[in-house]
Amino acid sequence: MKALWTEQFTVRTWDVDRNNRLSPSSLFNYFQEVAGNHATELGVGKDALLRGNQAWILSRMTTLLYRRPGWGETITVRTWPRGTEKLFAIRDYDIIDGFGSTIAQGRSAWLLVDVEKLRPLRPQSLTENLPTNTDMPAIPDGAQALTALPELQAAGTRTAAYSDIDYNGHVNNARYIEWIQDILDASILEQTNHFRIDINYLAEIRPQETISLWKEPLPNQDAGTEEHAGERPPFTPFEVTELWAFEGKHIDSGQSSFRAELRCGA
Amino acid sequence: MKALWTEQFTVRTWDVDRNNRLSPSSLFNYFQEVAGNHATELGVGKDALLRGNQAWILSRMTTLLYRRPGWGETITVRTWPRGTEKLFAIRDYDIIDGFGSTIAQGRSAWLLVDVEKLRPLRPQSLTENLPTNTDMPAIPDGAQALTALPELQAAGTRTAAYSDIDYNGHVNNARYIEWIQDILDASILEQTNHFRIDINYLAEIRPQETISLWKEPLPNQDAGTEEHAGERPPFTPFEVTELWAFEGKHIDSGQSSFRAELRCGA
Repeated sequence: MKALWTEQFTVRTWDVDRNNRLSPSSLFNYFQEVAGNHATELGVGKDALLRGNQAWILSRMTTLLYRRPGWGETITVRTWPRGTEKLFAIRDYDIIDGFGSTIAQGRSAWLLVDVEKLRPLRPQSLTENLPTNTDMPAIPDGAQALTALPELQAAGTRTAAYSDIDYNGHVNNARYIEWIQDILDASILEQTNHFRIDINYLAEIRPQETISLWKEPLPNQDAGTEEHAGERPPFTPFEVTELWAFEGKHIDSGQSSFRAELRCGA
Repeated sequence: MKALWTEQFTVRTWDVDRNNRLSPSSLFNYFQEVAGNHATELGVGKDALLRGNQAWILSRMTTLLYRRPGWGETITVRTWPRGTEKLFAIRDYDIIDGFGSTIAQGRSAWLLVDVEKLRPLRPQSLTENLPTNTDMPAIPDGAQALTALPELQAAGTRTAAYSDIDYNGHVNNARYIEWIQDILDASILEQTNHFRIDINYLAEIRPQETISLWKEPLPNQDAGTEEHAGERPPFTPFEVTELWAFEGKHIDSGQSSFRAELRCGA
């Protein structure tokens, strides 16, 4: 049983933007891929769980990218379980480049659900035999609940199409990030050298469902305003130059399907 | 100098659809990736050409997929130049699975352009020293010019966003295939076991440009109707059950940006 899962990836043409730098959604792709492969190796993968009518649902994710690799670079993506917090199973990540530098880190929180009753289960029944890696926190915070913001600007809609739907039958978690990318002014991402993304996945999006998208630039609270005095700002070891909030809502019910925050550094 | 370029890929979560089968756009991704890497190895890659104000432009592509691999499969993607045809440099492809079976084949036609004068150049100046692999045709036809069809049905629009734009600064060739996927009824692709896609790239799509999309189911001419008696049908070594035509047009100028045909087999 490998306490830490390691996989090498080559950054491909489809992973980089016009400036030849890894896109945020590809970072999410790498993390989901190694999480799935490690879970399988630990005996708690998709197929094994489905035999007991259970499934992992990604609920929260925090990613940090410090340097954006380019086409052809080989990177090492690592992941490891980090125990549980109440109903969440925690999984951490990092990426090490060819120079030995850590260029990305992440933390995810997963719910274990009964797929017939659509009810969350205590994950401890599955995780108690797994390594907890308590001495290896990828980041000091992460996978937090995000606050609903009242006044976001409408930024169009997306309808879940063939390309958005993954092997789990709903919109893939990295596709939410693509939708966020594509409602931002492209120049913001093109000029960003470092970023932190926090996202809460609140309701799955099924084929052909339409989501209204919302965004808003926020005042840079991380710089430490009076309003936030005393609060610990999110772990962002770079100067935050842009801070954006996002939300996606099911267009029929108004139910929130995701909330996200993006912190950019030049 | 390698006459034939070989690269292994693992099929990732983002490469498969809800039925765990390789998506058409991921097939195009693999082919573009190996073409780029082989061109670089042969000394005629993107960076080398740009130093002389030249670039390769993908003009036509034919792909055939006979079996759609699933998440975690390791496949070997191969590519080789196949000489020139008038202004086109031809490049062939295939994919071999872990059982040694050929599961995909392809052929592409590239234009060499002067990026300042935006004029096509004779590719022979670059290709005359390359291997021509005349004994290795991937398929007996392919990379043909497609006919404009007068009566297609409107199928929405797409505006080129951050995620659509690649390192060449325009909508990536595999993204055109995603746009095609997503205007088809998803059940068609989900039920398709084999397909042939022919596409002509007629004009690049730049950031923020909006394209109107058009589609139409065609009568199955490949089965050999009287109308087409005597014509040689396209190479499709499976029974064609669905035949669709597509076009994308720049919404302002009406200029065609691509034309495509999809042949499906159950």
